[in-house]
Amino acid sequence: MVSAPGQGDFRVGLLGHGTVGGAFATLLERRAGEIEATTGLRPRVAGVLTRSRGDFAQILADSDLIVEVMGGVDPAREHVLAAMAAGRHVVTANKQILSRHGEELWAAAREHGVQLRFEAAVAGVVPVIRVLQESLAAAHVERLHGIVNGTTNFILSEMARTGAPYATVLAEAQRLGYAESDPTEDVSGEDAAAKMAILARLAFATPVHLDQVRFEGIEHIAPDDLEYARELGLSLKLIGTAERVDGGLNVRVHPAFLYPGHPLASVNGPYNAVTVESPDITEITMSGPGAGGPQTASAVLGDVISAMIPPASTPEPTASLEVVQDVASAFYLHLEVADRPGVLAQVAQVLGMQGASIKSVVQKGLGEKARLVMVVHPLAESRFFAALELIARLEFVRARPRAIRVIEEEFT
Amino acid sequence: MVSAPGQGDFRVGLLGHGTVGGAFATLLERRAGEIEATTGLRPRVAGVLTRSRGDFAQILADSDLIVEVMGGVDPAREHVLAAMAAGRHVVTANKQILSRHGEELWAAAREHGVQLRFEAAVAGVVPVIRVLQESLAAAHVERLHGIVNGTTNFILSEMARTGAPYATVLAEAQRLGYAESDPTEDVSGEDAAAKMAILARLAFATPVHLDQVRFEGIEHIAPDDLEYARELGLSLKLIGTAERVDGGLNVRVHPAFLYPGHPLASVNGPYNAVTVESPDITEITMSGPGAGGPQTASAVLGDVISAMIPPASTPEPTASLEVVQDVASAFYLHLEVADRPGVLAQVAQVLGMQGASIKSVVQKGLGEKARLVMVVHPLAESRFFAALELIARLEFVRARPRAIRVIEEEFT
Repeated sequence: MVSAPGQGDFRVGLLGHGTVGGAFATLLERRAGEIEATTGLRPRVAGVLTRSRGDFAQILADSDLIVEVMGGVDPAREHVLAAMAAGRHVVTANKQILSRHGEELWAAAREHGVQLRFEAAVAGVVPVIRVLQESLAAAHVERLHGIVNGTTNFILSEMARTGAPYATVLAEAQRLGYAESDPTEDVSGEDAAAKMAILARLAFATPVHLDQVRFEGIEHIAPDDLEYARELGLSLKLIGTAERVDGGLNVRVHPAFLYPGHPLASVNGPYNAVTVESPDITEITMSGPGAGGPQTASAVLGDVISAMIPPASTPEPTASLEVVQDVASAFYLHLEVADRPGVLAQVAQVLGMQGASIKSVVQKGLGEKARLVMVVHPLAESRFFAALELIARLEFVRARPRAIRVIEEEFT
Repeated sequence: MVSAPGQGDFRVGLLGHGTVGGAFATLLERRAGEIEATTGLRPRVAGVLTRSRGDFAQILADSDLIVEVMGGVDPAREHVLAAMAAGRHVVTANKQILSRHGEELWAAAREHGVQLRFEAAVAGVVPVIRVLQESLAAAHVERLHGIVNGTTNFILSEMARTGAPYATVLAEAQRLGYAESDPTEDVSGEDAAAKMAILARLAFATPVHLDQVRFEGIEHIAPDDLEYARELGLSLKLIGTAERVDGGLNVRVHPAFLYPGHPLASVNGPYNAVTVESPDITEITMSGPGAGGPQTASAVLGDVISAMIPPASTPEPTASLEVVQDVASAFYLHLEVADRPGVLAQVAQVLGMQGASIKSVVQKGLGEKARLVMVVHPLAESRFFAALELIARLEFVRARPRAIRVIEEEFT
């Protein structure tokens, strides 16, 4: 993994080689060619520090940028401070140091004129840090709501879906790798509280320490509560809130019921999402996977690349994909037909000649109102439209057929 | 609006003073103090070019950065090129010049070493441009789905909600200001096609011209089709797609049915949303208001500030809001009670003494299973918890009461 120095190399010192660190090293190697095409520099891991191997001073000396994914306060904090003092940009995924020592770290970054990036510290690849720091730098934010812990969102989603009690679903989450063997930090709300402290600092330009964030967990939620939610069409989520209150700021984490129209109500499974409300923008919502080694590594890599390239540059095209026109789609097909036997069979035959097969069909109405409504399995659009031309000319088809594409992917 | 030069000013030349330009000038003035606190520079409009007044050469000479919100290809394209050749950063909201002349403009930005920012050109304040250019700069994007036209999403949402035909809903959209008096560009899908050309260029690093984007509009959608969608739980949206197909790229816009779990299925009204899929990140979704003068102006201002500040800097705190702990919440309250008359009245009385009033209540079960489940209107949490302590001690309450907050905001 540690390669020899070369021309045009961009040397990344990697502190930590657990799930995220390992995934980052793999991803960096896989994307090095594309990054070189875009930036002119080929990134490579110049050294790795773990608990058992590596020398921090040597890694620092050999690196252009430091990635810190070891977690915890010590020694991560000292390493990050030392790296910035030595003039290195730092990318970190560490919510602990930022929610407890953020002002010290940000002041050091300003003092030494380096970048401190931390997209991966909150909500994985959901780009909430960048959006708050840059897109919304001057928006007057009124409130921010977030689902910022994937473990608890998975547990609550499963409790709602299955009716099973907390302990059963927690055990399942542990088996699936969505919860740690000691789940306390997640299920107590403390993990979410650290993330909300960071988001509140950015959204309101006010120092916020983890100790100032009240939090409550999900351990006491009973199947009864979720049954009530289901009856009323509510969703139960572990919600982080940061909002202006009486000229001050309140930051908190607790379970809350949401009405169906709320942008966070439909966020299920191990996902994270954040809604930012401001009179300037109404509100925007961002959602995506909240954790996972590859996803977090991708957020770290986005920050590394941002530190490598000048802002707001649109690089020359690095790909020259052919723009193709004929793709495959599933289709809904709506036909007004004469009300008599054999009609469906003839339509199916024409479709079949073009390789189209019917997934589902409904016959509706009688006489003048007779309709055939069907969904056709995906096929090349050119073939579907060829079939459609033939169907339009069948003598029992009484009006121009209507076809609308169907996007069949299902998301959890 | 045009102020005198001063120390530490950042001079913005404004090309165009319609809905977006006017809202931008107002917003810039309102936020100038906060921006100065953050950046050390006070932004001000140094000159305005409209069809009837202003001199472009003079405005360019007097400006540090050019904001182009005039729209259309000519003369916007020449002005943007001239501004970049003169070494000015440019912020534009103009999808026309980017989807037709993007490569020329991006090459000019690279040649002259200036920033060309265009967040407002696609999906208003939804920060999809920044996220594709920066957060996902090295992600291998497989597919991008977008609802990138608010007019058509409003019309389809209203047709689904009311069952009314296209022409009726279009007229309503025009009355409400969601559709232009000549709605052709929106309802034909051409506006969305221009935006998809821009997104596809960024996501796939391949030149994409508007002419390469197939588009179909919503004019032919009938109430029947939406009735079918409702029966099957599907949503009908005008969807832009850019995806890798057979080693090439396909970019298209057409109406499509979505299954309920799809991240775009619940995006209703004049909203925009984009989902980016990549094996690196699974997928992320961003949503928010797609248009509107103030919202678009906010996106333009975000770009202007980004051009003013160094990347990834977390400025010193500019606010020192007090972090307050006691806020108001609505509560769900679940009580296991003895099954006898008068119980609800006593609970209501205790709540009332703390100023809590009951919004709704359900009595469930009999005997051992008797439950009172209620929602209490918002009140200070300290008062609610004081009431809860008293309720827990009532002799007919048979288990620890359970309380969960309710977030009552409703979104459209």
